[in-house]
Amino acid sequence: MTKVLKGIAASDGVAIAKAYRLVDPDLSFSKRTITDVDGEVSKMQSAMDASKAELEIIKNKAKETLGEEEAEVFEAHITILSDPEMIGAINKEISDQKVNAEQALFDVTDQYISMFEAMTDNAYMQERAGDVRDVRKRVMSHLLGVELPNPALINRPVVIVSHDLTPSDTAQLDRKFVKGFITDIGGRTSHSAIMSRTLEIPAVVGSGEATTTINEDDTVIIDGLDGVALVSPTDAEIAEYDQKEQDYLKQKDEWERLKTAETLSKDGVHHTLAANIGTPRDLQAVLDNGAEGIGLFRSEFLYMNSAELPTEDEQFEAYKSAVAKMDNKPVVVRTMDIGGDKKLPYLPLPDEMNPFMGYRAIRISLDRDDIFRTQLRALIRASSYGQLWIMFPMIATLDEFRAAKAIYDDERQKLIDAGTKVGEVKLGIMIEIPAAAVLADQFAKEVDFMSIGTNDLIGYSMAADRTNERVSYLYQPYNPSVLRLIKHVIDSAHKEGKFAAMCGEMAGDQIAVPLLLGMGLDEFSMSATSILKTRSLMSRLDSQKAAKLVERALDAQTNDEVKQLVLDAMDSLK
Amino acid sequence: MTKVLKGIAASDGVAIAKAYRLVDPDLSFSKRTITDVDGEVSKMQSAMDASKAELEIIKNKAKETLGEEEAEVFEAHITILSDPEMIGAINKEISDQKVNAEQALFDVTDQYISMFEAMTDNAYMQERAGDVRDVRKRVMSHLLGVELPNPALINRPVVIVSHDLTPSDTAQLDRKFVKGFITDIGGRTSHSAIMSRTLEIPAVVGSGEATTTINEDDTVIIDGLDGVALVSPTDAEIAEYDQKEQDYLKQKDEWERLKTAETLSKDGVHHTLAANIGTPRDLQAVLDNGAEGIGLFRSEFLYMNSAELPTEDEQFEAYKSAVAKMDNKPVVVRTMDIGGDKKLPYLPLPDEMNPFMGYRAIRISLDRDDIFRTQLRALIRASSYGQLWIMFPMIATLDEFRAAKAIYDDERQKLIDAGTKVGEVKLGIMIEIPAAAVLADQFAKEVDFMSIGTNDLIGYSMAADRTNERVSYLYQPYNPSVLRLIKHVIDSAHKEGKFAAMCGEMAGDQIAVPLLLGMGLDEFSMSATSILKTRSLMSRLDSQKAAKLVERALDAQTNDEVKQLVLDAMDSLK
Repeated sequence: MTKVLKGIAASDGVAIAKAYRLVDPDLSFSKRTITDVDGEVSKMQSAMDASKAELEIIKNKAKETLGEEEAEVFEAHITILSDPEMIGAINKEISDQKVNAEQALFDVTDQYISMFEAMTDNAYMQERAGDVRDVRKRVMSHLLGVELPNPALINRPVVIVSHDLTPSDTAQLDRKFVKGFITDIGGRTSHSAIMSRTLEIPAVVGSGEATTTINEDDTVIIDGLDGVALVSPTDAEIAEYDQKEQDYLKQKDEWERLKTAETLSKDGVHHTLAANIGTPRDLQAVLDNGAEGIGLFRSEFLYMNSAELPTEDEQFEAYKSAVAKMDNKPVVVRTMDIGGDKKLPYLPLPDEMNPFMGYRAIRISLDRDDIFRTQLRALIRASSYGQLWIMFPMIATLDEFRAAKAIYDDERQKLIDAGTKVGEVKLGIMIEIPAAAVLADQFAKEVDFMSIGTNDLIGYSMAADRTNERVSYLYQPYNPSVLRLIKHVIDSAHKEGKFAAMCGEMAGDQIAVPLLLGMGLDEFSMSATSILKTRSLMSRLDSQKAAKLVERALDAQTNDEVKQLVLDAMDSLK
Repeated sequence: MTKVLKGIAASDGVAIAKAYRLVDPDLSFSKRTITDVDGEVSKMQSAMDASKAELEIIKNKAKETLGEEEAEVFEAHITILSDPEMIGAINKEISDQKVNAEQALFDVTDQYISMFEAMTDNAYMQERAGDVRDVRKRVMSHLLGVELPNPALINRPVVIVSHDLTPSDTAQLDRKFVKGFITDIGGRTSHSAIMSRTLEIPAVVGSGEATTTINEDDTVIIDGLDGVALVSPTDAEIAEYDQKEQDYLKQKDEWERLKTAETLSKDGVHHTLAANIGTPRDLQAVLDNGAEGIGLFRSEFLYMNSAELPTEDEQFEAYKSAVAKMDNKPVVVRTMDIGGDKKLPYLPLPDEMNPFMGYRAIRISLDRDDIFRTQLRALIRASSYGQLWIMFPMIATLDEFRAAKAIYDDERQKLIDAGTKVGEVKLGIMIEIPAAAVLADQFAKEVDFMSIGTNDLIGYSMAADRTNERVSYLYQPYNPSVLRLIKHVIDSAHKEGKFAAMCGEMAGDQIAVPLLLGMGLDEFSMSATSILKTRSLMSRLDSQKAAKLVERALDAQTNDEVKQLVLDAMDSLK
């Protein structure tokens, strides 16, 4: 009988394929006293050779399908396996202690892991501990004769079934064969969900019981449109979902044709559709999806993928290449948003009881203006190579914006005095703190633009940490209170002739889009892969009718009521 | 030369007295090998006898000045000092290990402390660990011949100088002799500040350097009106502050006459002045200060001062005695606000990254409705003994209020069906989450009253944890964004003919009062000791003029701007 799993629709589309369980096997073993030292040493050598051969295959595969950079991690694993010092230590442990190969492997690698992990001031060495763990897992699987999932080696169409997906898991997946995802945990904004949208793979996350319910090679239907998975479906169900997939693909084709189209509502009003990105590597997908700009370029990657503070020149090069690649489309760079859940190994931050309500983002930048000035100089220098806008995160008060602007003005003047070429820069703020949303009319008099960061704005407005499962039900984007704050920001911007954008998950949410259109939001910035779908939806909506719908939504009482209101009105908006 | 320390004005009034340093002396010692066992044992005995004698004096003193209950802790200390098992163990340690008395005392008490602290499921035994620590400190001071501060023995007028003041420190202070406080750390809402207002002792907190600057017996002037302390002042300065004290006392006399007066603005508009309390013990001070009701009765004391969940009957008795004592004045009881920074030993809560934005208050009550129903039954039963209102904390959405009300209605009906007498109960909510403030017009249609909890409302609105020193500058009660939210709540309540109250620190803040009066807030609930001062201030303010001031404040840009606006207008409001 078909089993039905319900979860969260994380990435659009329908997939039907055999299950591939990306779940670690049982690698437990017992310590044994051995007599045949040579036998254990040679068993160890075979396991290492097999691991190395496997890694070579994986590495080449990864290079081919994922690129040089993603393949580097496997090269690092091979290097560890070739380390004569470690191999010698393991063999010595076998012969001195008379223990089985598994035990010797475990004990020696443990010393390496502890040593690397103890280097708490060196993020690079700490990462090496993870590599040793990965290598140990692989060699152990060969010693025990159990198969490790090797997602990089997948060579047939599969649906990946896993508890969760980490960045290193997804780095190994080949888009060609991975048709869908289903995970036990995670929400619409978890790493696995965001990654599935970036890779355009249908996905259901947070199903609760995928790994306990689905066996290897079970046929699985993933319905990423409605957040449902069917395990061992009937032929009739397969046919039904085949049809659903065809319909969806047809729709995607239509979206494809919208790549170079202008974003217009049915009644001809233009709105900008832009993309949110985390690193310059995301730029290609942005251009491929017909984005009209970058609405949020998170600058944290410069700080987080580094062993020390990035220099002004490093930053300058990164910003410059981004604005150049975007070919005069606007690129909104958000200044450093460190703190909260983002820590830096080389910048010790205080332990806080509530880091989301603590020392982070602009609060650090204003306190540590040495770091802030370096970033601003790099940005101002890059501004002459395209259209670069600067946005300050976590602004709560006008005092903070004024302080940040004063530092910016100071650095800009210094650069001009030194003869540096600088471009026109728009200076704006994220609206993600309720106090700033409420006072948007005053902010609008002094900023060039405002961009609503809905993830945090909703979290603070509801006093609920959206990463905390126990209160995640309070992440309510359609709650009238949230909609009223958003409307106030947009109206305030327009009253002063300023630009109002949104760069949270909500901007690409298909229920929210009619409401935001009705409010007259100027720019919708979202995951690149949501852009064409949104352009398509917008072309079918009448902005005047949407404005009427907004009036009713603002006067509603609950999130569910508004959601139902939009669903009921959807046809009449067209 | 006079040294001037600046801090935070925590409690009104002026005090001039000699400094009493409530700072732990150096109690470090070295381990020594001894030969004269009898000598060490008798040295130990003398120290214990001296400690016991001292504790008897302190205990009697405490009974006399502070009451039976406060004195109990010293009785517990004496009992520990009389424990033959512990004394035997210490003597045995001296003779077996040939160590000095200090070392033996330290080692043996350490075992007791570890044992008690290991009982993590028993809050009572864990507190005993603290008692053993206190006793050890006292005996050690006698062994080392250094004097321990004994605040309970103070018999001359002093100003207490300390790093911070804990509840157990303040429990020992005699109001008769303690003329003022100054501490290194803390803010207006720290324990030491709240306690100083409760005891009506002039205080300056958060001075940063009181303990490093002020020596024992230095003359100190505490100006709790302006948050300044003068160390070793000149005669002219003493005369000046003597005058300031006289003026202040004259003003207090006037307040005293207001105890039984109605709270009226200059133009004759009545507003209710109520008190916030944490335990029924606070009720006397409430009546002494002429409060017109209890605007916030925190029910956590029932849960926190207990080794297990309080029973329905225990709760019923507590609520009943409170409403009875208040003699038909309204008593607003807030249902359990556990979580955040308040943990219960017997109710395991998840570890959360951001507990202030997590599983707490009504979120727990709705999830654990067994606990919630018990509390509601106790409250409904107590409602027939006076005027009892029930208030739900941390309401973010109308769905939550409706769910809580449904449970309330259910329990009320069950009690009525069982023949229990129940009174008229008003059902309201705390407005402390921005989303609820923004949607107050919708809430006002369904609740009986709303009470604005400014401490949390400001915290969430600014996305700043006010207990975190690094972002405490964002606790901005006069920020126009905060004022707009408050105004919207008050207007929304009035539009539906409902009652609007405030029960945060802000309700008794002398800068905020004119603004809140101008907004037409119905009830101001504050520390009992702020009531008369506020009644006096109100009687001098014209509510029409205050309403004009509000308009200007709502249109201002920053916290400082509004503060200045009020200060400049203060005279013209009269």
